[in-house]
Amino acid sequence: MSGGRDFMYAAVLHAPRDLRYERVPVPSPGPGEVLVRITTNGLCGSDIHFYREGKLGPFTVSKPYIPGHEACGVVVREASRPGGPPEGRRVAIEPGIPCRRCALCKSGRYNLCRDVVFMSAPPINGTFAEYAAVAADFAHPLPDSVDDESGAFVEPISVGVQACTRASLKAAGTVAVIGAGPIGLVTMLVARAFGASAVYLVDRLAGRLALGAALGTAATIDAGAGDPAARILELTGGQGVDYVFDASGSSAACSSAPALAARGGSITIIGWPEKSAFPYPVESIIEKELDIHGTNRYCNAFPRAIGLLAGGRIDVHPLVSHRFGLDRVTEAFAFAADNPAQTIKLMVRTA
Amino acid sequence: MSGGRDFMYAAVLHAPRDLRYERVPVPSPGPGEVLVRITTNGLCGSDIHFYREGKLGPFTVSKPYIPGHEACGVVVREASRPGGPPEGRRVAIEPGIPCRRCALCKSGRYNLCRDVVFMSAPPINGTFAEYAAVAADFAHPLPDSVDDESGAFVEPISVGVQACTRASLKAAGTVAVIGAGPIGLVTMLVARAFGASAVYLVDRLAGRLALGAALGTAATIDAGAGDPAARILELTGGQGVDYVFDASGSSAACSSAPALAARGGSITIIGWPEKSAFPYPVESIIEKELDIHGTNRYCNAFPRAIGLLAGGRIDVHPLVSHRFGLDRVTEAFAFAADNPAQTIKLMVRTA
Amino acid sequence: MSGGRDFMYAAVLHAPRDLRYERVPVPSPGPGEVLVRITTNGLCGSDIHFYREGKLGPFTVSKPYIPGHEACGVVVREASRPGGPPEGRRVAIEPGIPCRRCALCKSGRYNLCRDVVFMSAPPINGTFAEYAAVAADFAHPLPDSVDDESGAFVEPISVGVQACTRASLKAAGTVAVIGAGPIGLVTMLVARAFGASAVYLVDRLAGRLALGAALGTAATIDAGAGDPAARILELTGGQGVDYVFDASGSSAACSSAPALAARGGSITIIGWPEKSAFPYPVESIIEKELDIHGTNRYCNAFPRAIGLLAGGRIDVHPLVSHRFGLDRVTEAFAFAADNPAQTIKLMVRTA
Amino acid sequence: MSGGRDFMYAAVLHAPRDLRYERVPVPSPGPGEVLVRITTNGLCGSDIHFYREGKLGPFTVSKPYIPGHEACGVVVREASRPGGPPEGRRVAIEPGIPCRRCALCKSGRYNLCRDVVFMSAPPINGTFAEYAAVAADFAHPLPDSVDDESGAFVEPISVGVQACTRASLKAAGTVAVIGAGPIGLVTMLVARAFGASAVYLVDRLAGRLALGAALGTAATIDAGAGDPAARILELTGGQGVDYVFDASGSSAACSSAPALAARGGSITIIGWPEKSAFPYPVESIIEKELDIHGTNRYCNAFPRAIGLLAGGRIDVHPLVSHRFGLDRVTEAFAFAADNPAQTIKLMVRTA
Repeated sequence: MSGGRDFMYAAVLHAPRDLRYERVPVPSPGPGEVLVRITTNGLCGSDIHFYREGKLGPFTVSKPYIPGHEACGVVVREASRPGGPPEGRRVAIEPGIPCRRCALCKSGRYNLCRDVVFMSAPPINGTFAEYAAVAADFAHPLPDSVDDESGAFVEPISVGVQACTRASLKAAGTVAVIGAGPIGLVTMLVARAFGASAVYLVDRLAGRLALGAALGTAATIDAGAGDPAARILELTGGQGVDYVFDASGSSAACSSAPALAARGGSITIIGWPEKSAFPYPVESIIEKELDIHGTNRYCNAFPRAIGLLAGGRIDVHPLVSHRFGLDRVTEAFAFAADNPAQTIKLMVRTA
Repeated sequence: MSGGRDFMYAAVLHAPRDLRYERVPVPSPGPGEVLVRITTNGLCGSDIHFYREGKLGPFTVSKPYIPGHEACGVVVREASRPGGPPEGRRVAIEPGIPCRRCALCKSGRYNLCRDVVFMSAPPINGTFAEYAAVAADFAHPLPDSVDDESGAFVEPISVGVQACTRASLKAAGTVAVIGAGPIGLVTMLVARAFGASAVYLVDRLAGRLALGAALGTAATIDAGAGDPAARILELTGGQGVDYVFDASGSSAACSSAPALAARGGSITIIGWPEKSAFPYPVESIIEKELDIHGTNRYCNAFPRAIGLLAGGRIDVHPLVSHRFGLDRVTEAFAFAADNPAQTIKLMVRTA
Repeated sequence: MSGGRDFMYAAVLHAPRDLRYERVPVPSPGPGEVLVRITTNGLCGSDIHFYREGKLGPFTVSKPYIPGHEACGVVVREASRPGGPPEGRRVAIEPGIPCRRCALCKSGRYNLCRDVVFMSAPPINGTFAEYAAVAADFAHPLPDSVDDESGAFVEPISVGVQACTRASLKAAGTVAVIGAGPIGLVTMLVARAFGASAVYLVDRLAGRLALGAALGTAATIDAGAGDPAARILELTGGQGVDYVFDASGSSAACSSAPALAARGGSITIIGWPEKSAFPYPVESIIEKELDIHGTNRYCNAFPRAIGLLAGGRIDVHPLVSHRFGLDRVTEAFAFAADNPAQTIKLMVRTA
Repeated sequence: MSGGRDFMYAAVLHAPRDLRYERVPVPSPGPGEVLVRITTNGLCGSDIHFYREGKLGPFTVSKPYIPGHEACGVVVREASRPGGPPEGRRVAIEPGIPCRRCALCKSGRYNLCRDVVFMSAPPINGTFAEYAAVAADFAHPLPDSVDDESGAFVEPISVGVQACTRASLKAAGTVAVIGAGPIGLVTMLVARAFGASAVYLVDRLAGRLALGAALGTAATIDAGAGDPAARILELTGGQGVDYVFDASGSSAACSSAPALAARGGSITIIGWPEKSAFPYPVESIIEKELDIHGTNRYCNAFPRAIGLLAGGRIDVHPLVSHRFGLDRVTEAFAFAADNPAQTIKLMVRTA
């Protein structure tokens, strides 16, 4: 229960740069939903996009809403329908709820459902709040061995799990990750957990490359100091890597990926480039018989991400660069918006 | 044996538009090779490229060579090493012989071997000749139920088999093929043989679309009369197709493919576009979580193409638009070079 | 609407051999359900098991229920929730409704859901009735090109689609089907639609083998006249087949499957053997590196089965051996129970 | 070069229990072969079978031969054909050389080639010698980071890589390994390297279970102290594991595997049971829609095993239970033959 209160505190975005920490009603869970007391939120780049620009892709902030979708917490009211997590169970919240009825849902690719309701995509409220209601089967139980910060990381880890799954990453493969932001770094960790024998990390920011090196890259490549493809070929005996992941969000970096890939290799595109169409070396796809995989959020990934954490296959704590309390959430957003290069993952602790 | 003669007649390309039907030595098979008396050759678009322009991609006609790589014939001298087809056995010739030793060869993707020796890629001789020598295991036995013209079609069918295999085409899927030239039409037939429930064919040439319709398309789409994507969405209840194959060789057509694909669908690129890089709608790959597959020739496809023919799953005879004898081969090349829109597959019969 | 009546006629099984054609209430569809006026039912072997013995596997007839789960009909009342088929739309009924919430449902393998509610598994009512209520998204629209008998065949075709999908049947592969009953014959047709180059059919009943031959087998094999494995090796040049399907329901036949398979081949078991455990040649699995796949009903198969029918890839009419009206349903059950060898598929027409 | 000598010392098995350390000719490499000076050999259970019983499966010791096939060494004479490892390069020896020409070889499953020549399968000589000749492309280069004992472990690791690859083991899956002998333990390590979130190890020997626990199992299960299936269900919340590997070599243990598997799970059989056929719970395969995979040696696994070692994903040193010099090889065999339960991996160092 919500402590007898029917209101709660939340971060509400009213307009660009106008985020307020204020009282709002506690959400009322529907019949198949649990009410979760949020303990920890991670701050995602997309939250910052809405904060700074008031829009992202097809979504626009047209009325006040609560951002946030990287959260874990504790069930305080179980669902009316049996089968979900009981009161007191710690859970990670999967924020996109699909229709469960279309062909894509029934075939297991529910992330592609046209009717996904995604928490924190305006006007749908998200998790920067004391409480959130979520479908019981999208509140994934966390074992004791997974702490709250790791629980808030289940969402971005799931992005990496989806990417490595879409890539059909096989153990012992070689990997290049373009872009060493939070998603690139998580993808690197997940690729390692999938058994990659060597991961090469490409970026322009020395600090991020240094963090990657500390986390286990085989080599880091400064994209500002020469051609990354030439360096990759040098490192792989002229072959290129088996798997390229583009987490750069840059169309120029994205179109450099085929040059990094080995014959028969693959490229998985995670980061949305800033343009919808741009010059791409299509001939390389044919010549090397490459596979290009798009990846859009995740499906069936949360339990796997939790399994990787619980099994000790991934440690995300080094990615936490800053920590705030929920009452300082407006400060946290402003800091992240103004210091993108210095921020890896910023964590907001509720209690 | 080659009838006691040590010379044979062959089509020899000396320079652009300078193809001569002339006497050359009968090739001497190596220890693992069979000597094949060629009975039928199909004329491929790449042969015509060399005929017209003297070059194609990285290959240039720098000295006289014999074109042709869509051939079948009869073994007239078996290999010294046992295991190959015996004298008198009809065979289809797979023209690209890999090294058999690199990692790509050993893992089954020998078409990507860097050391493939490809018959008819200058200066390597091809099959427009009375005889050809070929590795015994690349001379694939033909059952009696597969006639010579079908045997000469095993090579282009293999291109279609490779494309549908790379696409992981599952039976009952819906398909769009862009480009109704010989490869597009063969891909349509192979997609049908793989169990596609509906194949939509896109081109600008009415004659080719009419041929496609006669071969079993669900609908043909005139790319010159409106937006093919809009028509595909109309035909598929707003979903798009599960599998797009681009056999157009046009960068504009190639970049239109993502708009035809359903969420979670795939695009397989067969035709080499005229440019190596061009604007491509990469955002769609992410949004719809598409897979893009390049396809480069074929591997392990000849026995499957023969199986499809022998099992009556494909009939290629309607694709044969013209027939010539080998002694009129220069006429055949000139005709095909000058009448691209009228020619589907031109067959050259040796005996 | 059910014509203003609140009752309907149905076949109700009270006890073994006690099937009555009687008045029962029209079912009341729930919020996500449509009401379907049934036009055609196929009679399944499992219906006959309940009719003869009153039980099958874990299910027992403990109170009167309506059998039948191979049905098509017309929507007469649409669901309250939007998105389902409208009134007047012809549909095939997928009879097993899963929970939609467990990990197996969400990953696309909903047939393995522990909470599937399966129509006609006692005490759940089935489709041998004038009306049935079913989840709107499990009432699959039929195009006009699929007639009612074909519509009633969508369920058994889906069993074949599931089997061929579980087998990852690739076009041009060779196939042996053990057991030429309705499921074996349907699997043969589906394997052909998936592009099998040759299907060999094994049974002991001459009539069924003759039907198989008429439907396109490459060869039929009389299991009573010699060792089927020896014959398969003879027919495949000593290799064995790529894919074996066991639809025999016999443990002896089931354990003969590995001997029919080629090295690297697979075996898919559809028919429930009469024993739960029996001697199996496990060493062959290792030596030939075989894959054995179990298959249990179907998931995501109905739309594919409909696509194969609509695309003209399968014609099931030759499998219909007998036809009855619903008012003669008791006669139909008695006939099928007493003449198993003479019955392939018995159809019951409602209107 | 072999130091100017034309003879070498080797372990030669003349008859059961009659192993002699004696002078034999240095092998003469063929045109595509390198000569390798062996530095380290692992002792395999199959070597011990021949030592104790003089036969194993289809192979019998009918004349003296050299056992051993888990070896690494240094190239002392490169192949006449270019492309292989140069003189001085450390290599791991893949002992089974296929024909390279059959359909199985060309499609990448060369381990299933009917004409594999396998070193140490009598009468073919193996690697318990100072020198061995091997096809240049089956002498796999070792980076400096992989020491000699690890190099000698590449062969058994490859067995584990093949098993996990055949199982399509996906990261975050749960695993049970039946049998904690060397292959079971290696499979556990490889499963961990592939990203398994939890590996449960089943055996009857406390010492082996303790070693497994030290190597990272989630739990060990004493098969002598209750039903392993019941314990697995308890550990997995009633689900069973996603992947079972049977490395027991026991038909009783092998047939217990389906009870350990989750619905939709798989079983991979590595260990050759002592009987060729035995009672197996086939019904479970259908009910749970399981996949059973046989696994026979390995293909394309050596480079991956080396990658896992080089990338620090596997440490095999804890599996080395005993070390001998080559001059004490007869003592090593006798010890292993007489102390099976005490021996995990026994290493024989040449120099």
